[in-house]
Amino acid sequence: MKTQITDFFKNLQKEIWQKLEIADGKGKFVPDQWQREEGGGGISGILQKGNVLEKGGVNFSAVWGKMPQMLASRDNFGDGEFYATGVSIVLHPHNPFVPIIHMNIRYFEMNGGEKCWFGGGIDLTPHYVVSEDAKYFHQQLKNVCDKHHSSYYPEFKRWADDYFFIKHRKETRGVGGIFFDRLVANDEFSLEDRFAFVQSVGNSFADIYTYFMQKNKDIPFEPQNKEWQLLRRGRYVEFNLVYDAGTKFGLETDGRIESILMSLPQYASWQYNFQAQPNSQEEFTLNHLKKGIEWNDK
Amino acid sequence: MKTQITDFFKNLQKEIWQKLEIADGKGKFVPDQWQREEGGGGISGILQKGNVLEKGGVNFSAVWGKMPQMLASRDNFGDGEFYATGVSIVLHPHNPFVPIIHMNIRYFEMNGGEKCWFGGGIDLTPHYVVSEDAKYFHQQLKNVCDKHHSSYYPEFKRWADDYFFIKHRKETRGVGGIFFDRLVANDEFSLEDRFAFVQSVGNSFADIYTYFMQKNKDIPFEPQNKEWQLLRRGRYVEFNLVYDAGTKFGLETDGRIESILMSLPQYASWQYNFQAQPNSQEEFTLNHLKKGIEWNDK
Repeated sequence: MKTQITDFFKNLQKEIWQKLEIADGKGKFVPDQWQREEGGGGISGILQKGNVLEKGGVNFSAVWGKMPQMLASRDNFGDGEFYATGVSIVLHPHNPFVPIIHMNIRYFEMNGGEKCWFGGGIDLTPHYVVSEDAKYFHQQLKNVCDKHHSSYYPEFKRWADDYFFIKHRKETRGVGGIFFDRLVANDEFSLEDRFAFVQSVGNSFADIYTYFMQKNKDIPFEPQNKEWQLLRRGRYVEFNLVYDAGTKFGLETDGRIESILMSLPQYASWQYNFQAQPNSQEEFTLNHLKKGIEWNDK
Repeated sequence: MKTQITDFFKNLQKEIWQKLEIADGKGKFVPDQWQREEGGGGISGILQKGNVLEKGGVNFSAVWGKMPQMLASRDNFGDGEFYATGVSIVLHPHNPFVPIIHMNIRYFEMNGGEKCWFGGGIDLTPHYVVSEDAKYFHQQLKNVCDKHHSSYYPEFKRWADDYFFIKHRKETRGVGGIFFDRLVANDEFSLEDRFAFVQSVGNSFADIYTYFMQKNKDIPFEPQNKEWQLLRRGRYVEFNLVYDAGTKFGLETDGRIESILMSLPQYASWQYNFQAQPNSQEEFTLNHLKKGIEWNDK
C-alpha cells in the first residue's frame, strides 16, 4: 500500500503544478530533485514571479530511515525505522485580495507498517478576510469531508482552529480550514477509508485555490493594501518559524532547508505596534482572526 | 544594588537614544511605556524611517513576580520570586553597507538576591562582511573586555560564535561579538566587578555603532545590494524566531509582544535556493559566516 500511496502523492504534485500553471498564465514550477543522505528524497517545485503567484511551492517527498532519537521519545513516535511521504504546498499571491493557501497531506509508517497513519490539512490565510470567500472555502472542505464521514468536518475544522493559531498574537493564522493527524485504521475506518479521504482532500485542492485566483486576481489595490499584505505575511512567517510542526520537525532533523522554508514569502514586513483604523477592512480582518467562527452558518 | 543597576539601565537607554538620534539626523525614538500585569513593566523606544536607521528599538524593562513554572524547572531558574531588568537593542539600517547591530545587557535575581547574575552580549550582523569593519568591531569589544579581565574577550567571543549561530543554515548570524550569561559573584569577581563590566559594555555601544553609521551610510548601492540585504534580514528573522533565547522566553511567558518583536526588520525577503555568484561580495560574506574566525588577527 505504501507504494500506492507514494505514487498518488507523486502524481498529485504534477497535476497541481499543471492546474496552477494554467491559472497563473506565466509562472512555471521548476522541479528540483534532492536526495536525503539517510534515505529517500523528494522533488521540490517552486514557482517564482508568476502573474498571479509571487512565490509558491508544491513539494513531494518520500523519506525513510532510523527514527531520530529525540523524536522517538519526545514526540512519542517510538523507536525503529520510519517511512514518511507527502505533498506540501504554500502559495503566496501578488494581489493582496487573493488569499495565501497551504495544504499538506502525508502518510507515515513505523517498522514496515507496524503502526501507520495519515495526517494533513488545508487552511486559507486571506490578507483581507471576506465572509463570502471564507464561507465558500469552508463549504468546499465540508463537501469533501461529508463524502467520507459526517464527523470529519466539524472535528477537523475545530482542530484547524486550534492548530493554525499564533499564540503570542492571540490570532488565528487565517480563516482556518481542516487539520487532522494520526488517522489510523480502527473499528470504524480501514486504512483504505483513510486513504480515500486523503485522496479527496488532495484532489480538491487545485479547484478550490484556482477559484480564488481567478475571482480575485484583478481586484485593484492601493499601496496601503500591499503594506498590509506584507504585515500579514510577517505573521505567516511567525507562525511557520515558531509553531508549525512540519517546519520544526524539518529544522530539528536537519531536513532539506530550502524545501522546508519554501513556505516563507518573497517579501514580508514588520511594523511596531500597527493599529488598524476604526471600521477599516484591516480592522474587520483582525476581528475575524478568531477560533470558533462557523463560516458555514454565516 | 538592584536599584542602582536598574537606574543605570534606565539612564543608559536615554543616552543611547540621544546619541543615535544625533547620528541619524532625522529619526526619533518614540517612548512607549507599558505595564506587566504580574509586576513591573518597561519603556520601549522605537525609531522608524530615520535617515540612516530604517527601524530600530532601544528598550528598557524591569519586571518581577513569580517565576513561571515551566522556566523554573526546564531552564533551571528555580522556584520563587524573580526580578529581571535590562536594555535590549536591535538596529536595522537602510543602507545595506551599514551593519545590523544587537546589544542586550541584563541583571537577574531570585528571591531578593538569593541568586543573582548578569548576562548579555553585543553582536554585529553586516549584510556584507568587510574584514576591516569586523576587525574594528572586535578590537573595540576586546578593549572593553580587557579593562576587566584578560579571560573575558576570548571566552565571550567564543560564546558569541556558538550562540549567534543559525543551526539549520550552518551559518553564523554575522561576525559575532561577545556573549555572556550567569556572571555571578565568585572567588575571583564580586557582583560589583561584574556590574562594572556590564556598565563598560553598555557605555561602549553608542560609539561603536555610530562609527559604522557615519562611515558607511553614504556608500552607494544598487538594487541587487538591497535584495541581498533583505535576504540577510530574512536570516535574522529566522535566528530570532527559532533560536534567540530572549525572544523564546518572551513568547513563552506571554511577554509584551510588540517589545519582543521590535527586533524584526521593516522588510525582509526569502528566495528559493539563492546562489551567490562566484567571487562576489555575497560569496565572500557567506564564506565568512563561520565560527572561530579570529578577526583581531586578520
